[in-house]
Amino acid sequence: MPAEEHRNASPAAPHPPTDTAEEAIWLWTQIKAEARRDAEAEPALASYLYSTILSHSSLERSLSFHLGNKLCSSTLLSTLLYDLFLNNFSTDPDLRAAASADLLAARYRDPACVSFSHCLLNYKGFLACQAHRVAHKLWTQSRRPLALALQSRISDVFAVDIHPAAKIGKGILFDHATGVVVGETAVIGNNVSILHHVTLGGTGKFGGDRHPKIGDGVLIGAGATILGNINIGEGAKIGAGSVVLIDVPPRTTAVGNPARLVGGKEQPTKHEECPGESMDHTSFISGWSDYII
Amino acid sequence: MPAEEHRNASPAAPHPPTDTAEEAIWLWTQIKAEARRDAEAEPALASYLYSTILSHSSLERSLSFHLGNKLCSSTLLSTLLYDLFLNNFSTDPDLRAAASADLLAARYRDPACVSFSHCLLNYKGFLACQAHRVAHKLWTQSRRPLALALQSRISDVFAVDIHPAAKIGKGILFDHATGVVVGETAVIGNNVSILHHVTLGGTGKFGGDRHPKIGDGVLIGAGATILGNINIGEGAKIGAGSVVLIDVPPRTTAVGNPARLVGGKEQPTKHEECPGESMDHTSFISGWSDYII
Amino acid sequence: MPAEEHRNASPAAPHPPTDTAEEAIWLWTQIKAEARRDAEAEPALASYLYSTILSHSSLERSLSFHLGNKLCSSTLLSTLLYDLFLNNFSTDPDLRAAASADLLAARYRDPACVSFSHCLLNYKGFLACQAHRVAHKLWTQSRRPLALALQSRISDVFAVDIHPAAKIGKGILFDHATGVVVGETAVIGNNVSILHHVTLGGTGKFGGDRHPKIGDGVLIGAGATILGNINIGEGAKIGAGSVVLIDVPPRTTAVGNPARLVGGKEQPTKHEECPGESMDHTSFISGWSDYII
Amino acid sequence: MPAEEHRNASPAAPHPPTDTAEEAIWLWTQIKAEARRDAEAEPALASYLYSTILSHSSLERSLSFHLGNKLCSSTLLSTLLYDLFLNNFSTDPDLRAAASADLLAARYRDPACVSFSHCLLNYKGFLACQAHRVAHKLWTQSRRPLALALQSRISDVFAVDIHPAAKIGKGILFDHATGVVVGETAVIGNNVSILHHVTLGGTGKFGGDRHPKIGDGVLIGAGATILGNINIGEGAKIGAGSVVLIDVPPRTTAVGNPARLVGGKEQPTKHEECPGESMDHTSFISGWSDYII
Amino acid sequence: MPAEEHRNASPAAPHPPTDTAEEAIWLWTQIKAEARRDAEAEPALASYLYSTILSHSSLERSLSFHLGNKLCSSTLLSTLLYDLFLNNFSTDPDLRAAASADLLAARYRDPACVSFSHCLLNYKGFLACQAHRVAHKLWTQSRRPLALALQSRISDVFAVDIHPAAKIGKGILFDHATGVVVGETAVIGNNVSILHHVTLGGTGKFGGDRHPKIGDGVLIGAGATILGNINIGEGAKIGAGSVVLIDVPPRTTAVGNPARLVGGKEQPTKHEECPGESMDHTSFISGWSDYII
Amino acid sequence: MPAEEHRNASPAAPHPPTDTAEEAIWLWTQIKAEARRDAEAEPALASYLYSTILSHSSLERSLSFHLGNKLCSSTLLSTLLYDLFLNNFSTDPDLRAAASADLLAARYRDPACVSFSHCLLNYKGFLACQAHRVAHKLWTQSRRPLALALQSRISDVFAVDIHPAAKIGKGILFDHATGVVVGETAVIGNNVSILHHVTLGGTGKFGGDRHPKIGDGVLIGAGATILGNINIGEGAKIGAGSVVLIDVPPRTTAVGNPARLVGGKEQPTKHEECPGESMDHTSFISGWSDYII
Repeated sequence: MPAEEHRNASPAAPHPPTDTAEEAIWLWTQIKAEARRDAEAEPALASYLYSTILSHSSLERSLSFHLGNKLCSSTLLSTLLYDLFLNNFSTDPDLRAAASADLLAARYRDPACVSFSHCLLNYKGFLACQAHRVAHKLWTQSRRPLALALQSRISDVFAVDIHPAAKIGKGILFDHATGVVVGETAVIGNNVSILHHVTLGGTGKFGGDRHPKIGDGVLIGAGATILGNINIGEGAKIGAGSVVLIDVPPRTTAVGNPARLVGGKEQPTKHEECPGESMDHTSFISGWSDYII
Repeated sequence: MPAEEHRNASPAAPHPPTDTAEEAIWLWTQIKAEARRDAEAEPALASYLYSTILSHSSLERSLSFHLGNKLCSSTLLSTLLYDLFLNNFSTDPDLRAAASADLLAARYRDPACVSFSHCLLNYKGFLACQAHRVAHKLWTQSRRPLALALQSRISDVFAVDIHPAAKIGKGILFDHATGVVVGETAVIGNNVSILHHVTLGGTGKFGGDRHPKIGDGVLIGAGATILGNINIGEGAKIGAGSVVLIDVPPRTTAVGNPARLVGGKEQPTKHEECPGESMDHTSFISGWSDYII
Repeated sequence: MPAEEHRNASPAAPHPPTDTAEEAIWLWTQIKAEARRDAEAEPALASYLYSTILSHSSLERSLSFHLGNKLCSSTLLSTLLYDLFLNNFSTDPDLRAAASADLLAARYRDPACVSFSHCLLNYKGFLACQAHRVAHKLWTQSRRPLALALQSRISDVFAVDIHPAAKIGKGILFDHATGVVVGETAVIGNNVSILHHVTLGGTGKFGGDRHPKIGDGVLIGAGATILGNINIGEGAKIGAGSVVLIDVPPRTTAVGNPARLVGGKEQPTKHEECPGESMDHTSFISGWSDYII
Repeated sequence: MPAEEHRNASPAAPHPPTDTAEEAIWLWTQIKAEARRDAEAEPALASYLYSTILSHSSLERSLSFHLGNKLCSSTLLSTLLYDLFLNNFSTDPDLRAAASADLLAARYRDPACVSFSHCLLNYKGFLACQAHRVAHKLWTQSRRPLALALQSRISDVFAVDIHPAAKIGKGILFDHATGVVVGETAVIGNNVSILHHVTLGGTGKFGGDRHPKIGDGVLIGAGATILGNINIGEGAKIGAGSVVLIDVPPRTTAVGNPARLVGGKEQPTKHEECPGESMDHTSFISGWSDYII
Repeated sequence: MPAEEHRNASPAAPHPPTDTAEEAIWLWTQIKAEARRDAEAEPALASYLYSTILSHSSLERSLSFHLGNKLCSSTLLSTLLYDLFLNNFSTDPDLRAAASADLLAARYRDPACVSFSHCLLNYKGFLACQAHRVAHKLWTQSRRPLALALQSRISDVFAVDIHPAAKIGKGILFDHATGVVVGETAVIGNNVSILHHVTLGGTGKFGGDRHPKIGDGVLIGAGATILGNINIGEGAKIGAGSVVLIDVPPRTTAVGNPARLVGGKEQPTKHEECPGESMDHTSFISGWSDYII
Repeated sequence: MPAEEHRNASPAAPHPPTDTAEEAIWLWTQIKAEARRDAEAEPALASYLYSTILSHSSLERSLSFHLGNKLCSSTLLSTLLYDLFLNNFSTDPDLRAAASADLLAARYRDPACVSFSHCLLNYKGFLACQAHRVAHKLWTQSRRPLALALQSRISDVFAVDIHPAAKIGKGILFDHATGVVVGETAVIGNNVSILHHVTLGGTGKFGGDRHPKIGDGVLIGAGATILGNINIGEGAKIGAGSVVLIDVPPRTTAVGNPARLVGGKEQPTKHEECPGESMDHTSFISGWSDYII
């Protein structure tokens, strides 16, 4: 996500250094400053902010603590999960970079996101995604029962059901997130924004590659259902409530149930911007010819 | 809700005094009587009924206790939340009146609601809404981090995600409630009924007024997605699964994806009754011209 | 479910004896062997596997323990729930047979289900369904407040909201399950597969028989909304995201919002296979005439 | 304990039938009546009384529930312990008879014990003793690691440390109980009363029979330390704070540190009554020749 | 406790205003300042300090929160106990004054007590005593089953067993406190210091007035056992490990098992200072004639 | 502790390599083997053994996990404590060596200790001591509020109250441990054995060096009270229930209240063996001239 765009999109939000190495430090500094400010303003929340953020020495420790406490159960203890998360986050820079990119995505794309700590603490989509990344890593290490147990906890606690084998890029915003389902062979590119109740589902009872592939910069509206091993081209936009069973070309918009391309199948209207970042959900209305109330 | 209508709608249910001041007392008396009857009939549930209802001296205490125990986590203790809820409910008669109106709404509109205590204890939509009202009050007092933390807990526990800035009237029924999403600048009038998976969503990544305004007496069917700063006129009905991006006139019915007005855009059929209270989900079928199986 | 079909569908999965009496023993033996293998391979999960499966002497004890710990709250203790579940599962062979049939359904229909223990431990749809069966039994014994309290816990914990009066057959797969809503007078036959966000909803605020009747072998795609006292004929298929308000004939496919029959209302295409078991979600595309991207 | 003696000792307390078979029923009936009366008088406690007593169908279920919830930890779940206790109490009439005898002992010997339910719910000595009886049974079945884990939980929760191999009779009152330590080869007879901080300890680091043997009807005062494989004769009395390293003859009184026999070593004063039941702690004063302030 | 004496005893400790009305405010201000300093110096403890002290608006709220969380169990919820404590502390100035006096007693008498917040948070003797004061109030209001349930929780959690009927003055220091037992008819005066394992016990199994009466300013050493309805005169000192069965005159010292008066029974040595405040445990050695090693 | 002595004392127990570096590895291997054997023999305990021992890669991880879960509370979370313990144990070889020495001490001195894992999991004295060592380290690092909070948790959970400033050597056995109190300036040497209810207490309300110094190899019997800045010489033995206020010479035995030296003050009997290791509690009887029953 170019810093330039950040500035345009949300001028009030502070911006990270362009140097990647410094970004993580900057981000953690921001988060601690936000938490300190909020703890001072709201004593009733200070204990929560200290335990989740201010008592920790790094974002990965804070995140591991928060996920361990959120996802634990009487049979999967918080200490076990904390240990698992911390081991993974502290040894894998890719996991940390993805978490940072996701925090930035929420902060700059979602106007309701008032701070990085707001996302870190409160966004079930963000938390589910970070926990999924660890589950995915376990899956690739053939630690499948543990990965599946994590998936189950994420689904119970956040109502977000992502198969641990699914591949998810960076800079992802799962907004609201309740009810998201992502299947085993699904692939999600970078800088994708996915609203709640979105399904990336399979077809039939046979295994193999059977789930959607979502290109970079795609925006998928609330309640959209995308089924089968199909491609949603980079920069495409899927309208809320759409049911998509066939490929969608890059930078086009598919809407409706059954979904159609805005502008028509032969000459679909192409947009320039990256909807996964602009989050423009509804500008296709004028092109949706039979949308009439 | 006029008592007269109550009687018609659900003759078996007991009815409150028409005098507002007496209604709260009557309601709490009813709830305790129900709980006492159930505790006697079902010893396995008696402990639960005593701790949640029968040991308390008022509805606000019972509700604060129940919400505190439902929404607490290992980092947000039940005692802290109980204190927060009790402080608000005991000092703000509007919060109490809204809770009473919502209890009556569930009891008289939902035929599956067998008693007031059934709603008080078991309806996640009711509980999420009361907790939201407190979060909203905190928001208006500029206690935003605490309000957002509450929103997050409500979303984790009930899968109901209502931004604390959203304004919600009285006599609201969130039926089933799982998956409801209500955005920051949404407004919901009085006597509205909203089924599960309903989204009152925003558009784009810029702030400002960007969510729907729902008039009094509206009924929104399951899975309906309403996006943008549009008006759903008082007494309108939105069919299940509809995707609505444009204003809907009062007392008309919009159905489908994309949504259309029953009777046509030019001369939409107008209904007399208040669908938010009658809960008539499907009577538009005959007017939905291309609905054919 | 004939063993023959199992073999075709998922050749890698082991199959139970055809004799019903031996099936339960075989299944529990399989589950313990899976858990033992996983515990050895993954020490971090061994404690979980021992507490949930390997320390128990039977499937009903394991299931009762797991449900008790999943569904408990600070006001409904795990010991109380464990006792309730164990009393029911150990005295009612129908409940046990249904649990076995549901485990087989998940294992043979869902290619993402890698083992019986995977389903037993991790599938919220499976767990919600077994807990519902106990709630339903309580309902038929006029222990309604307890049944409704269970419904509420299932809805909070699994985001699956099934009225305890609803009648559900055997061999049911609730896949992903988040957001499923099943109303009071709904009936679901045997060998039905229902994806997440499916609503079997009612109409209006009056009581009586007002929810759908789902025939044997039906497949209902993700996000489908079926409203009113209508019949979905045996072996019918409901496309994802469909809104269905009128009867669907046996072995036909209804898709879209509003839903239409594939092949047309007069001569709908009939399929031979049983979609509830084949889980073929998308083969109707070629017959969905106006589905065009 | 003869009913006659009960009547003399504590005329206000109700008395059980002399027939043993009816005693258990009578006792459980008394306990439920007490709990019901207290629940009505004190709504704040009603939930507690219902969950621990009134929701259960028998004393063994109530006791198993209470012990399971008291002794559980994050790594030894209440459901597991409940199951363990219930299996033992429901299949072993000796365990049940001992629990009944201990309840009667507390009720009739301790003037501070106002009801059977008071002892059942609140006496850590009673609860520790019943849990020990189960640990002892496990020990005799060679389930030693589980027995030792129980011992540890009892010591953590109640500060009562009884080795699971220790043999303890019926009608035992551990009054106050904090700090009681009973070693591996200790034996305690019937109708014994032991105050807090009492040690029945061993000698040296070699195994074998190395702990005291306490006869029937003995009373051991607070803080007494009895060490080694010595006999405390039936009906003997050990003064508070005494340190006893040598046999004490029946029906005599040993006091002091080092302990001496009241009346002198050669002709110790013999008492008639049974101090384990009369609980007379201090009548020896006149005979303690050098006790002078 | 005169401020003058405070200054002598512990010059480093800050001192309250002599005006009683201002003392409570001063004390709470001190406690908050201590907690704020510690939270800043130790981030790992900050969450704990905010939740227990810094998020509260008064000492009684902090204390009620802390006691509620310490004494709760799975069957006696923290919210219920918090409510109970808060109701009592906020309506009864005597309870608040006693808590303040006890905090000052610990701070000025115990050299290991480094701050008021140290005592408030960590001294089980202080916490047990405050909870007892509430239990005692309930007892005097004839809410006996609740008072006894509290006694049981205090005994389980703190290993301090004080009968709710026992009367306890102000300015009490229970130092270390483990194992303290105080019987039903015991009375403890003001400015008394009692070490751990001290028993104020009864005699026999008959009711009535049967426990010790402890005068103002008494010091009772560790492990002392005082039995029967006897008087320990004001300013008396009881040596560690003593067993006392007969009255002890004012300002004398009793030591040993059996206890003797230092200086002899006829002309016991009288001391001037108030040992309950000076905490001088061992100055009697020179007067203990037969104490020889 | 010389391996030779181990062999004599407890021939059945396995012995570590004499090389210190290999001892830790050997010990952890033993512990895992014991736990594996017990898990196989007792399925009901397997979950507990896997979570506490078998899922961990080292003794310090197992111990940190176990202490974190034992000592946590609703306001001091297990994840925080686990992190604190793990950071200390994994970076400080002295802490690890002391834990190993303490495990060996329990295994070889206490005939009731059947395995290393028995001590690791179940001995509150062992666990309290290891937690104290961490608290002591925090104290020396001027992290005093955290050290004091740990002390408080140890006192609540284990009824063992050791001031974090107290210095404790290696090879310590706190047997039974309930009620042990160790003051701020106390020092305990190596290979000391201390029974339950032992007090190493201070004198008066003034600070400074005021607690006992316990030499190497000392044995202190149950309930002994040692007060003031006095020396208990190396290899001395303090009888159960003794009250000691004056120095005790090396390799002598002090018994009684008031304590006297066995053999007389002028020519006390000297013993050869090391009572802290031999655990001989009662062989002084023959030398205790006035011990007569």
